[in-house]
Amino acid sequence: MGKNAGCFQGCLHYVFDYKTSKTLVIPNLGVGCFFRFSQLLIVLYVVGYVCMVQKAYQETDSAISSVATKVKGFAFTNTSDTDPRFWDVADYVIPSQGDNSFFVLTNMVITPLQTQSRCPEIPNPSTTCVDDCDCIEGYNDPRGNGIRTGLCENYSTTAQTCQVHSWCPLEIDTKLPEHALLAAAENFTVLIKNTITYPKFKFHRRNIRPHINSSYLRACEFNRATDPDCPIFRLKHIVSEAGEDFQDMAVKGGILGIIIDWSCDLDWWAGKCLPKYSFRRLDSKHPVNNVAPGYNFRFAKYYKNRDGRETRSLIKAYGIRFDVIVFGTAGKFGIVPTIVNMGAALSFLSLLPTVSDWFMLTFMRKRDLYSKWKVTYLDEDAVTEDGPEVSNWL
Amino acid sequence: MGKNAGCFQGCLHYVFDYKTSKTLVIPNLGVGCFFRFSQLLIVLYVVGYVCMVQKAYQETDSAISSVATKVKGFAFTNTSDTDPRFWDVADYVIPSQGDNSFFVLTNMVITPLQTQSRCPEIPNPSTTCVDDCDCIEGYNDPRGNGIRTGLCENYSTTAQTCQVHSWCPLEIDTKLPEHALLAAAENFTVLIKNTITYPKFKFHRRNIRPHINSSYLRACEFNRATDPDCPIFRLKHIVSEAGEDFQDMAVKGGILGIIIDWSCDLDWWAGKCLPKYSFRRLDSKHPVNNVAPGYNFRFAKYYKNRDGRETRSLIKAYGIRFDVIVFGTAGKFGIVPTIVNMGAALSFLSLLPTVSDWFMLTFMRKRDLYSKWKVTYLDEDAVTEDGPEVSNWL
Amino acid sequence: MGKNAGCFQGCLHYVFDYKTSKTLVIPNLGVGCFFRFSQLLIVLYVVGYVCMVQKAYQETDSAISSVATKVKGFAFTNTSDTDPRFWDVADYVIPSQGDNSFFVLTNMVITPLQTQSRCPEIPNPSTTCVDDCDCIEGYNDPRGNGIRTGLCENYSTTAQTCQVHSWCPLEIDTKLPEHALLAAAENFTVLIKNTITYPKFKFHRRNIRPHINSSYLRACEFNRATDPDCPIFRLKHIVSEAGEDFQDMAVKGGILGIIIDWSCDLDWWAGKCLPKYSFRRLDSKHPVNNVAPGYNFRFAKYYKNRDGRETRSLIKAYGIRFDVIVFGTAGKFGIVPTIVNMGAALSFLSLLPTVSDWFMLTFMRKRDLYSKWKVTYLDEDAVTEDGPEVSNWL
Repeated sequence: MGKNAGCFQGCLHYVFDYKTSKTLVIPNLGVGCFFRFSQLLIVLYVVGYVCMVQKAYQETDSAISSVATKVKGFAFTNTSDTDPRFWDVADYVIPSQGDNSFFVLTNMVITPLQTQSRCPEIPNPSTTCVDDCDCIEGYNDPRGNGIRTGLCENYSTTAQTCQVHSWCPLEIDTKLPEHALLAAAENFTVLIKNTITYPKFKFHRRNIRPHINSSYLRACEFNRATDPDCPIFRLKHIVSEAGEDFQDMAVKGGILGIIIDWSCDLDWWAGKCLPKYSFRRLDSKHPVNNVAPGYNFRFAKYYKNRDGRETRSLIKAYGIRFDVIVFGTAGKFGIVPTIVNMGAALSFLSLLPTVSDWFMLTFMRKRDLYSKWKVTYLDEDAVTEDGPEVSNWL
Repeated sequence: MGKNAGCFQGCLHYVFDYKTSKTLVIPNLGVGCFFRFSQLLIVLYVVGYVCMVQKAYQETDSAISSVATKVKGFAFTNTSDTDPRFWDVADYVIPSQGDNSFFVLTNMVITPLQTQSRCPEIPNPSTTCVDDCDCIEGYNDPRGNGIRTGLCENYSTTAQTCQVHSWCPLEIDTKLPEHALLAAAENFTVLIKNTITYPKFKFHRRNIRPHINSSYLRACEFNRATDPDCPIFRLKHIVSEAGEDFQDMAVKGGILGIIIDWSCDLDWWAGKCLPKYSFRRLDSKHPVNNVAPGYNFRFAKYYKNRDGRETRSLIKAYGIRFDVIVFGTAGKFGIVPTIVNMGAALSFLSLLPTVSDWFMLTFMRKRDLYSKWKVTYLDEDAVTEDGPEVSNWL
Repeated sequence: MGKNAGCFQGCLHYVFDYKTSKTLVIPNLGVGCFFRFSQLLIVLYVVGYVCMVQKAYQETDSAISSVATKVKGFAFTNTSDTDPRFWDVADYVIPSQGDNSFFVLTNMVITPLQTQSRCPEIPNPSTTCVDDCDCIEGYNDPRGNGIRTGLCENYSTTAQTCQVHSWCPLEIDTKLPEHALLAAAENFTVLIKNTITYPKFKFHRRNIRPHINSSYLRACEFNRATDPDCPIFRLKHIVSEAGEDFQDMAVKGGILGIIIDWSCDLDWWAGKCLPKYSFRRLDSKHPVNNVAPGYNFRFAKYYKNRDGRETRSLIKAYGIRFDVIVFGTAGKFGIVPTIVNMGAALSFLSLLPTVSDWFMLTFMRKRDLYSKWKVTYLDEDAVTEDGPEVSNWL
C-alpha cells in the first residue's frame, strides 16, 4: 500500500511537475534587436503575406458551371453566285443548341443537289488518267473523293480523270469566297446565362445580378467600361477584345474563348463575387504549323427528290466557334488551413533561438563571456558520480 | 599532424557533443496541469479534428467524368390546332445525342412551310406604316424579322405594315400553348451511364455497380429510399426532387441540373465510393431579372418542295435541358500532407513552453522564487572576463 | 520624469534583453550521433522527398482546355440489303461538330419511309391478341411502340397483334448486322487540336508544337514510338491502344476516352510541357450488369413526300463515341507552399531535443550523472524566499 502510494506520488510528480529550461538574460542590445527584429519579420510575414495577400487561411473550392446561350440577329446575302437569301438563327447556329459552345456560320461552300452516283474526280496529279488502265476499280485513294469505278472519263475538254462512285457532283472547296458571306454576323448578339456553384460552400450564383431588371436587360450590351454587368455581347466586340478582326476571322473561321472567371473571396463581400469576362482566340492563326487553319466542318441537309431518291446539299461551313470557358476558385476561412499555415510559420519562431545563439556566440565582442555563462561543459572524467557542486545546487 | 589531429578532435567534439538545455523542475500542480492540459488539447486537435474530421493527412484529386444518357418514352398529341401525332425519342430529343446534357422537347411553336419570300411584318409600333415612304428599303430593324423591301402592305384588314424579305410566313411566337404539348414527357425515363476516374490514384468507377444484373436494371427506377443504386430516372421524379412542378416547367422550359457527387475516401471502404445524386434547377424562374425566361431555341427542318425550292418548318422548341454535372474529390493517405499537417500542429507544442513560462512567471504566487531559480541575469559590468563562480561550475 | 525614465529603461530592458537558455554540453558520442543522425534524416526528408520528389514547394493549378476535332475518311457499303452507298464525313459524324466529343457511325438499323399512321405491333407476349377486346384503345404500353387504337390486326399469316398509332412501319431493331456496316471506319483519321491554359500562371499551350510544319502535319500519323507529337490519330490505332478490337467494338458501339494529360513542371523545362496521350474504353462491355450495351442512339431524317406529308427515315445509329478528356496540373514555385512545407518539416527539428533528452536520460549508462547536471529540482519547502545560493549566482 505504502509502496503503491509512493509510486503513485512519484508518477504524479513525474507527470505534473513542470519542467522549464533555465534561462540567462543578456543585456546586449545588438543580440536583443536581432532577435526581436527577426521575430517581427516572421510575424509580419504571417500576418501580412500569408493572411492578407495569399489568404492561406482559406479553404478553396472549384466552380461547377452551367451555361445557356442564345444568339440573336439576322443577315441578308445577295451575291452574284447565289439567290438573295435571308438568314436567321435557325440557319446559322449549328447545332441549334449547345451548352458551353456555340457556332456561328460566317462563310461556306455549298454543293447542292448531290446524289449517290458516278462522276470524274477533280483533277490533280494522282487522279488524272490516260485510259481505263490508270484507274484501278475499287481503289480508295485517301486523298481522293470516292471509290474508283475503273473508268477514265473527261473532266473537262482538257483533262481526263478517273471516275469515282461518290456523292456527285463533287465539292470544289477551293472556291471559298474571299469575303465572308455572312459579314453581317459581326452585329449579332449573344445572351449568355451562366450559373455557378461552389459545392463545398453551398454557394450558388448567376451572372445576371439580382438588382437588374428585364427592361435593362432587353436593351443593354456588354461594355467593360459602361455596362460591365450586361450579359449580352456583340460578336464583333468579343472578337475585337480578343485582339482580332472579325471580318478577317470570318473568312476561314476560328475558335474564340469567352472566359468567365468567378474567383471569389467568400469571407468578405460575397456580394462582390462577380464574373470577370475576358476573351481570347484559342486556335492558332499562324499558317506554318497549322493543318486545316481556321475552323470548319461539313454537314449536309438531306432531301428526297420527286422519284424518291435521296439528294443532299453538302455545306462546308466556316465560322467562329465560341467556347464559353468558366472557371474559378472560391476561398473561405477554414480552421485546418489556418492552423497549418500559422503553425508552419510559427515553427520558424521556435528555430529562431538557435540562430540567435549562433549569432551571439560568433559575432559579439563579449562572446567568450556569454559562452562561459551560458554553456556548461560536462567533463565526465573529472567529476564524481555525485556530480560536482551538486551540493551547491540543491 | 598533431595539430591536425587536435583540430579534427575539436571538430568531432563540436559536431557530436550533445548540447542540451538545463532544466528546472518545479513541483507546482497549477503550472504542471496547465502545461499538460494544453499539450493534451493540441494532441487531441491533431488526432481528432485534423485526422478524423478533416482527413488532412490525405492527398486529393478531382474526378474526371464521362457521361452517356439515353431517354426512353413516347407521347401522343391530339390538339385542335394540329393533326394527331405520335412522338418518339428521335422527335423530341434534340440534338439526338449529347454527352453531358440532353434536351427534352415539351412545348413548341411550329411555323410550317416557310420559304424565302416577301411578306408583311408582324404589327408593332415600329413596323406599322401608312405608305411606302415609311419603309426604307434595305433597312434591317434589329427587333424586326427581315430586311425591308420598301413597300407598305396590308397585314390584315385593319393594319398595314412594312414588307420584309424573310422566311415567310413569319413566326408568331406569342401563341405558345398554355399547357405543355408533350405533357406526357413527365413519364419519360432516362438512363445515365457515368464513368469517373481519379487519375492520380488510378481509380476508375461506374455508377452501375458490379453486383447489379441486367434484369434488375431493365425494370428499376431511381428512388432515394428504395432504389438508390438504379441509374434510371423518371423525368417527373427529377423535377419534383428539385422542388419544381414538371407541368409548370414544361410550358416555358428550363434547365435542370442532375448533380452527381463522387466524393470518396479511398483509404477506407473504397467499395463504398458511390455516387450521390441530387437535383437542382439551374435557370432563374423569377421574371424580374430575366430575359428570355425558361429555355428555348429555334431549329428548322429543311425540305425541298415539288419544284425544287427550299422550304422549312421552323420550330421554336421549349423544353427542359438536363445538365449532368459530375464532380468529386477523392482523398487518399499521402506522406507529404501528413507531415505538413502533423508538423504544423506540433509546432504549437514547441511554442507551449514559452506560453507556460509566461503563465508561471506572471500568475503564480511564488513567481519571484521561480524567477530567481529559473533566470540568471548577466551583469556585464559586475563580472570579470572569467565569469563569476565559473570555478564553481566546472 | 525620473520615474518615467526608469520605467522606460525597464521596458527597454524587458524587450531587448536577450533571453537564452543555459545549455549543458555532454561529450557522449552515442547521444550526439543519435541527435545529429535524426537531424540529418529530417533535413534529407525535406530536401529529398518534399522538394525533389513531391515538389511541395510548388503552387498548383488545373488546366482549362478547348478541343477541336476533325475526322477524315470515307467508306463504301455494298450489302445485299441495301443499295451501294458512299459515306463521307457529313454522313457518319453525328452531330456534324462537337467540342470534346465526336461520334463515328459504324453500324445501323435503318427504317425508311416511316409516316404517322397505324400498323400492327411487333409480336411479343404483351402485344399479341385474339380479338379487339385484348387491345384497349389509348393504352400506352411503355415497352410497346405506340398508342393502341383498339383494333387487333394480322401482323403476319401466323400472328395477330394490337394495332398502334405510331411512326409506321415500326422499327425492327433485332436485325442488327453481325458485321459492322462501316467496317472501313477503322482507317478513318482524326485530327485533334487542343489548347490549354493554366490561368494562375498565364500559361497557354497547344498540342501542335511550334517547330512542326504543315507538310509534316499533312502526312503524319500518331505513333507512340515514331511520331509522338503528331496530332492525327487513326481510329483503329486508338482502339487497339485501349486494348480493344475495332471490328468487335464497331458492331454494338462503345465509348472510348482519348485522355490527354498536360501535367507539367513550369519551373524547369517549360518547353518540355507536352501532352501525354492515352486511350481507355469508358463504357462497360460486360453483359451482366449492362443495359443497352455498347453505344447507340436514334435519329431521323425528315422528308416531305409528293403530297406534302411528312415522312422520315429512322436510323438507330451504333458507333463509337470518342471523348477527348483533357486534364493536368501544373506546378510552379510559390513562396507560401514553400514556407508551409519547410516550416512543417522544420518543426520536427524543434521537437528533436525533447526526444534526444528522453533517449539520453533513459538509455545511457551515465544517465544519473547527466540528469544531476542537467536537471535542478526546486524544493519549495527547503529553500527560503531568497533562493538558495542565489548569492553564488550573481
